[in-house]
Amino acid sequence: MSEQHNVLNQETITLTKALIERQSVTPEDAGCQQLMDDYLSPLGFNIESMYFVDTLNMWARKGDKGPAFCFAGHTDVVPVGDPAHWQTPPFEPTEINGHIHGRGAADMKGSLAAMLVATKRFVTDYPDHKGSIAFLITSDEEGPFINGTTRVIDTLEARNEKIDYCIVGEPSSTDYCGDIVKNGRRGSLTAYLKIKGVQGHVAYPHLATNPIHKAAPFLAELTTTVWDSGNDYFPPTTMQISNMNGGTGAGNVIPATVDVQFNFRYSTEVTAEQLKERVVALLAQHEIEYELDWIHNGQPFLTDEGTLLEAVNDAITKVNGKPATLSTSGGTSDGRFIAPTGAQVIELGPCNATIHKVDENVSIEDLLKLTDMYYHTLVGCLA
Amino acid sequence: MSEQHNVLNQETITLTKALIERQSVTPEDAGCQQLMDDYLSPLGFNIESMYFVDTLNMWARKGDKGPAFCFAGHTDVVPVGDPAHWQTPPFEPTEINGHIHGRGAADMKGSLAAMLVATKRFVTDYPDHKGSIAFLITSDEEGPFINGTTRVIDTLEARNEKIDYCIVGEPSSTDYCGDIVKNGRRGSLTAYLKIKGVQGHVAYPHLATNPIHKAAPFLAELTTTVWDSGNDYFPPTTMQISNMNGGTGAGNVIPATVDVQFNFRYSTEVTAEQLKERVVALLAQHEIEYELDWIHNGQPFLTDEGTLLEAVNDAITKVNGKPATLSTSGGTSDGRFIAPTGAQVIELGPCNATIHKVDENVSIEDLLKLTDMYYHTLVGCLA
Ligand SMILES: [Zn+2]
Ligand SMILES: [Zn+2]
Repeated sequence: MSEQHNVLNQETITLTKALIERQSVTPEDAGCQQLMDDYLSPLGFNIESMYFVDTLNMWARKGDKGPAFCFAGHTDVVPVGDPAHWQTPPFEPTEINGHIHGRGAADMKGSLAAMLVATKRFVTDYPDHKGSIAFLITSDEEGPFINGTTRVIDTLEARNEKIDYCIVGEPSSTDYCGDIVKNGRRGSLTAYLKIKGVQGHVAYPHLATNPIHKAAPFLAELTTTVWDSGNDYFPPTTMQISNMNGGTGAGNVIPATVDVQFNFRYSTEVTAEQLKERVVALLAQHEIEYELDWIHNGQPFLTDEGTLLEAVNDAITKVNGKPATLSTSGGTSDGRFIAPTGAQVIELGPCNATIHKVDENVSIEDLLKLTDMYYHTLVGCLA
Repeated sequence: MSEQHNVLNQETITLTKALIERQSVTPEDAGCQQLMDDYLSPLGFNIESMYFVDTLNMWARKGDKGPAFCFAGHTDVVPVGDPAHWQTPPFEPTEINGHIHGRGAADMKGSLAAMLVATKRFVTDYPDHKGSIAFLITSDEEGPFINGTTRVIDTLEARNEKIDYCIVGEPSSTDYCGDIVKNGRRGSLTAYLKIKGVQGHVAYPHLATNPIHKAAPFLAELTTTVWDSGNDYFPPTTMQISNMNGGTGAGNVIPATVDVQFNFRYSTEVTAEQLKERVVALLAQHEIEYELDWIHNGQPFLTDEGTLLEAVNDAITKVNGKPATLSTSGGTSDGRFIAPTGAQVIELGPCNATIHKVDENVSIEDLLKLTDMYYHTLVGCLA
């Protein structure tokens, strides 16, 4: 706490609290984007609200030259569950021991506030900076992500508007702010498999084909297959069965089918097409009759070099005295929709220990540091 | 049709129709047992009605000496489904091409009628026969079989009343009446297995233990295990998984548990205890954490020699010119509750092609033959 932060950084705390007060449970925005507009408009940003079905999105941009630097994030939060389980009312931001408590404090209203303040400082300090600064904000990141970032990106692509550098404010840190940044994410591919058999009576198995019996050796092999060994940036591809259901409920009936749902988190060492082919080959090898549908939730992406990564590393080193560890682990983020356009994408945000839980909170000191990190990243990219 | 049947056999047809008219869907008896009482009482039978919870049972006996010959059966029928799918109203017995159509015609109201008429003929022809004749009739054979035959047997056992020979009227035949009799049944043992893991997110599999992944190699081995090779009377023991359910429904959650229900149909080469031990050993070998409950639906039984089998074989040969094939295949029957008391048990009834289906029917010629077979069996055992 002895460090000197820019006096403007205190606005990060005020803004974080103001955002938490707005009860923006997915897909509600609850006025968060209006608050951001009100902050960015006086700085010279042009604001576009994009409302798709049930989701409010915001594309704000200052300048029209390249390179375009974009802060990306979401105003929505996950439900609070039973508020009685919280130490403090989840939508009343409360300071306890240097932390702000409230739903969204860490994921990711604190980040949004830090982005706003870092931007204000940067455009004040560097009025003649190069390129443009933008904000891509959605209110459905925690939801089905159908009408959020992906639709905004479609709109930008349609008018050939490009993002060069993108900082996503997801809480990437583990022990202290900036210990880890995500410079990529694994791909995600989900299979909906129906294994077919022939229904019958358990007393007459020779007249039936039990789909669960057909499934067992296939699944034994599926679950022990090594899909790849990962690489310098990605852990090995993993596969997990999330749901398996077969049977009529009756104890004496051999079911006609069994449904198996499984998900790959995959590295850049394989493609979704290759994974599909290998599953299909395994099904054929086990002589299984099936129906199979796939949902491709996201390509893997990686930002392993370039101006943005350098700027982020320099910024973190300035604040922490050492650079961040790069990671591609964990779930997906909206970065998967932005990276395929060719943008460099890095995720940097506060500690994620309390996200999606009761008593979600964020360290005030971390938010002040995060503001500095975002500011120095802007300097590194656009000064 | 050229064969000469006893004139009394025509009563089998009348009685079958009268029983079909009574809409005795499990556990309803709908007056069937009263009809049987009315037929047996004048023949000198002492009738005991035993009503347990929702189930009407009947124990009728003529004489108190041994050996006790018992006809066993049920008055209840399975539901008809949508009556519109039937060619004829299911509870209006209708003759079509020498068959009586109606729910319960083959399973097993035709058999009950044949038992009654065979008994009347026998006590008329052999007024001084040895031993006793009894009827053990329930109305819950098609249901949960909790308050039916098993409770009557408990009552008889409690007063030390023994059955020596028992004919169960289940439709044992395939192509013509008496081509097959069941001289035993396999045991039935059901396992309710809950395989335990540790819930988690599919993106962080190292923090979770996927119970479906744990289950897969275990199930692959369970489904390919040879439990025994059967013997002269029993086919090899079989195991079938009837239900398997795991998962929260969400595609990104590794479930905490998966439930697997499976059933053994087992020969006299293994015991239920041995099967349980082998399953538990397999679970241990696969290092699976689990909860396991068993329901023992019935011991296997076998009547491979003795007075009853000889009498049945002679009776069938008299009618068909050749003996029946012995079989222990198929589902369970109430014979499993009677055999453990030490009784010889044989199942003999009409063809089972239409049982539990729409347009259930029974051949009139078969019912006449069945009446003769029951009659000659009584002669063989008690004349
Ligand atoms: Zn988030
Ligand atoms: Zn039956």
